[in-house]
Order: sequence, then structure tokens, then C-alpha cells
Amino acid sequence: MSFRYPPSMRHLINELSKLPSIGEKSAARLAYHLLAKDIPLARSLASSLVEAAENTKLCVHCFFLTEADACSLCTDGQRDRHSLCVVEKPADVFALERSGGFRGVYHVLHGVWSPLKGMGPEQTKMGQLMSRLSRASKGEAQQDDPLQEKPSEMILATGATVEGDATALYLANVASELEISVTRIAQGIPKGGDLEYADELTLNLSLEGRRKI
Amino acid sequence: MSFRYPPSMRHLINELSKLPSIGEKSAARLAYHLLAKDIPLARSLASSLVEAAENTKLCVHCFFLTEADACSLCTDGQRDRHSLCVVEKPADVFALERSGGFRGVYHVLHGVWSPLKGMGPEQTKMGQLMSRLSRASKGEAQQDDPLQEKPSEMILATGATVEGDATALYLANVASELEISVTRIAQGIPKGGDLEYADELTLNLSLEGRRKI
Repeated sequence: MSFRYPPSMRHLINELSKLPSIGEKSAARLAYHLLAKDIPLARSLASSLVEAAENTKLCVHCFFLTEADACSLCTDGQRDRHSLCVVEKPADVFALERSGGFRGVYHVLHGVWSPLKGMGPEQTKMGQLMSRLSRASKGEAQQDDPLQEKPSEMILATGATVEGDATALYLANVASELEISVTRIAQGIPKGGDLEYADELTLNLSLEGRRKI
Repeated sequence: MSFRYPPSMRHLINELSKLPSIGEKSAARLAYHLLAKDIPLARSLASSLVEAAENTKLCVHCFFLTEADACSLCTDGQRDRHSLCVVEKPADVFALERSGGFRGVYHVLHGVWSPLKGMGPEQTKMGQLMSRLSRASKGEAQQDDPLQEKPSEMILATGATVEGDATALYLANVASELEISVTRIAQGIPKGGDLEYADELTLNLSLEGRRKI
């Protein structure tokens, strides 16, 4: 007889280990904590999971997370609705909002173009972005979409990875057909970064992107 | 207005970040995965949490995890009931069972003596171990406890940490009063370990613990 955890705990470990970056051992440690140290947390976590799964959905316009149909950013009349920023995932919206450097509206792709991982444009919200742009260009935007007109600028803020660059290039092509002005966020050495420790590619990018002061 | 996730997602992030070794950012990443990528997993995780919280309890004898009153190790008549191994946590039982080197019964402390972390003997199952030993010595063991008699050997398999050592020392004193033979698992360089990379303390311990071959 091979020795094992009780069935319901094994099941919990199995479910926990399906989470990203949680392996079998971490899952066992979490399950132990939940079942032997903090049963109230197990119960409250379960109910918050159910509640969040019931209530959280994607914004019909920008695909950010929301509990209403449209998210708080799309319905905020104070935002600049002529500036559109395209990001990979909701956490990127947060990072940009924390920076305070952008006051426009967003479109969240929920992925990037990554053929190696089997992620084509159709697995992301790229198609929705294109139809959003094309409708805005024709003045046929969905009611309540903050993007009622063609944006004066579309900022491509996908990550500085091969996939992020490829996605940006693809979207830039689409936008140029619609005559939308497109920019890409700068790549270079990070604030506080030491040139000595920067990799060659980053240094080259920071040289290419140099600006007059 | 400071910008935030929708309320139910924020609540989920909050609950997730109460788990050991899950910070705010990991919690947000997990919540995003559960709510935007894999809602079925959110639901099945919730139900497995509830199910496991309902069904899992600690063995009345050894405090290992079980769904019955006594665990599968305590009820297994094939185990050597004169050999008792004391460990810190259920995962240690697994590690020992995987090693195959021990065929006796266990006592899980669920903690160690750690004054700095506010863990005294009363926060662990040390008291239960002592009364278990004393009852077994007097022939007054609980019905069905595999430890019906004083064990011929008690192996202290707490971790090789300051707290693990202190706990072992404390238990060794208790056991000596009951005239129970006590051993401590060996500390030294691990199998496959290179002396060059071993720390001084481990090397000293491996020298102290040297044996004739």
C-alpha cells in the first residue's frame, strides 16, 4: 500500500497544484496550512472564490475586470477618451495607473501573439480591439464605449518581449490602415539602472531610443 | 479616487494573500488566473476547500491528518508499535514514509518549541505526546492507540534547526524520566553532498557523529 494523504486533502492538493507557479510541494504546504492550522481561512477562501467567480467579469469595452458591464475606467468621464493604451493583462493597467503617467482609456488583450505557446490573435482580445477601432473610425462605436471616435493616439504598452514586440508590430500595421497614430512605450535602461549591469540588447535599445535634451 | 480591482476580486486577493508564502502580487496573479482564465478551477477549488475542511481532521492518537478518528498509520496492524517517531509536521511523515526506513508509529507535534515565534509546548501537541507516553508506561493507554506499551525506542525526528534541537532536548528529558530510550536522527552532510560546499556547522556535526566502519 503506498501511503497517501486522506482523499479530500489529496483532492485539494490536486486542485491547488493546477494554479500557476504552485507545484505539488507548495500545494501540499498550502493544504496543510488550510486544514491543520487555519480552517476558517479555508472556508472564507472558498466563499470568496465562489463570490468572485460569480461577480467578476470582463468589461464589455476594454476587457478589464469589473463587476458591472463596463469597468470603472471606461465609465469615468474624467479620462481622456482620445488616448488609448493597449496592454497584455489587467495587472499592467494597475502598474500604469500607479505610475500616474497615463490618463486615457485602455484595451486589455489578455495575452500576446505567441505562436510557440499556441496563442494566436484569436486567443486574445486583439480581434475585439480591431473591431473597436474600426467602429470608432466609422462613428459606429457601441453605446457607452469611451472610444466613440478614432483615438488621436494608440499607445502599445505590451511587454518588452519578443511576443510583446510582435503583437505591437501587428497592431501597428492594423492601426496604420485606419490612419491611427501609434506609439510604442520606450525600452531602455530602467531608472536607477547601472550601465555596467545592463544587458547588451537593453543598452542597444536605449541608444537607439536616445533623445535630444 | 485611488484605482482598485472590483470588490469581490479584491476580497479574493486579500484572502489568498493570507496563505503562507503568497504575497500581494502573487495573490493578484492567482486571482487573475482564477477569474479571467479558469473560472471552472475557481469553482472546483472552492468546493474542494469546503469538502476538505469538512472531512479532514487530526488523528486522535498521533495527530496526523485523517478522515476517520484514527489515521491509516495508527490503525495499520503491520506497523511496529514499539518504535515511536516524533516529527514536526505531517509532511515529515511523508518524507519518512517515502524513505522507507521507518516502520513504526508516529506522533506529529504540529510545531516546535520556538519562544521567539511565541510557540511554547502548549501551542504544539507536545503535551499530548507526554500524556500518551505516560499512559502507555502505566498500561493505561487509550483504546486503539497503537502505543499500548512504553515504546522500546523514541526517535526524535524534528528538524536540524535551533528550535528542532531544543524541542528534541526537551522531549529527551521527559522521556528519560519515564525511562524510555531516546534517539535523535543523525545530522551531517547529505547524500551526494560535497565537503567543499558544506557549511562549517554541518561539517562539525558530521565529524562529531562519525561512526566506525
